[in-house]
Amino acid sequence: MEESKLPKGEQSRGRLLAAAASEFAAKGFHRARVSDIVKAAGLTQASFYQYFESKEGLYQQLMDEFFSRLWELADGGSKVTALGKADVFDQVRENLVALFRFFQERPELTQIVLYQAEAGEELHRKLAAMVSANLRQNQAAGHVRAALSPEVAAEAMVAVCYRLTARFLLTGEKPPEQLADEAVCFLAHGILQEKR
Amino acid sequence: MEESKLPKGEQSRGRLLAAAASEFAAKGFHRARVSDIVKAAGLTQASFYQYFESKEGLYQQLMDEFFSRLWELADGGSKVTALGKADVFDQVRENLVALFRFFQERPELTQIVLYQAEAGEELHRKLAAMVSANLRQNQAAGHVRAALSPEVAAEAMVAVCYRLTARFLLTGEKPPEQLADEAVCFLAHGILQEKR
Repeated sequence: MEESKLPKGEQSRGRLLAAAASEFAAKGFHRARVSDIVKAAGLTQASFYQYFESKEGLYQQLMDEFFSRLWELADGGSKVTALGKADVFDQVRENLVALFRFFQERPELTQIVLYQAEAGEELHRKLAAMVSANLRQNQAAGHVRAALSPEVAAEAMVAVCYRLTARFLLTGEKPPEQLADEAVCFLAHGILQEKR
Repeated sequence: MEESKLPKGEQSRGRLLAAAASEFAAKGFHRARVSDIVKAAGLTQASFYQYFESKEGLYQQLMDEFFSRLWELADGGSKVTALGKADVFDQVRENLVALFRFFQERPELTQIVLYQAEAGEELHRKLAAMVSANLRQNQAAGHVRAALSPEVAAEAMVAVCYRLTARFLLTGEKPPEQLADEAVCFLAHGILQEKR
């Protein structure tokens, strides 16, 4: 929705969240200051405390929103199970488009969460565990190759999404749709030409 | 070769290199001290300077040896071009075994170079450029699928090798051969069951 169509309170809250994401990404949580956040948002310190209890409270809201959507997107593989074989490739592509769009729309938060977080290893493992569970389910449904190690493939898929996001998406080199097309080509069928 | 079969000078030099790799990995280059390196190697400060000009000189030797072998291994894809179709999968697997064995035999240097280096992004791009060139060549030879973006697939492959090394190899969870088997399954043919 365009900012101008939102109620004024929502606009201010949104501008504070956006300004805070930039500040946190640029300076890290500890060095980011409420005074700089309100300045960047064109608002007053008083208005900040109308919407947020503290810098910590704002950060927590940013993270809660980011993660609740990230878990949904990372669980996208679960949508595949019910499909017929013909639709699986398209669904995987669609999941990647949604994931890359989400990252592209929040470059600062993506930077913070995926590449600066102290809890990076924990996050990677949690995401891989979700993907692994979905791969297993889709092996049972006949969509994913039975020979595959779901555990290893899941770690690999998360690493690929991380890297392609950093290398091509956040640099602005490729839009989400193109990156998803090129990524699904690799992830779905690998590099080797089938023997004929 | 077993240490005891090497000439004494080579043994001492080797022990200093090994001790230094541990120190650099544990403390970083700047905080590692020659006095701790010689102590860990069971040698004297004087013997250190028989073999190395300085801490910097030793570090450079470690890096030169590591990288000259890493470039060879990362270029393994060039061996694929001359093969017949039937051998390609096995050659890719063999390349991965060699790469994972190399990392496993030098866990400290691998840690330093792949995961702590300030020049990490530059290294990743250089490796991806080599892999990309080989993918292109193997597309021309009919081994690699024509639909694949070599650039994106190369970035993805390097990211997968990095991650699987950190996650399964350096943790001791999987030996190089098993990890190569599971990685080549994913890299060669992707996750999806072909339509029947």
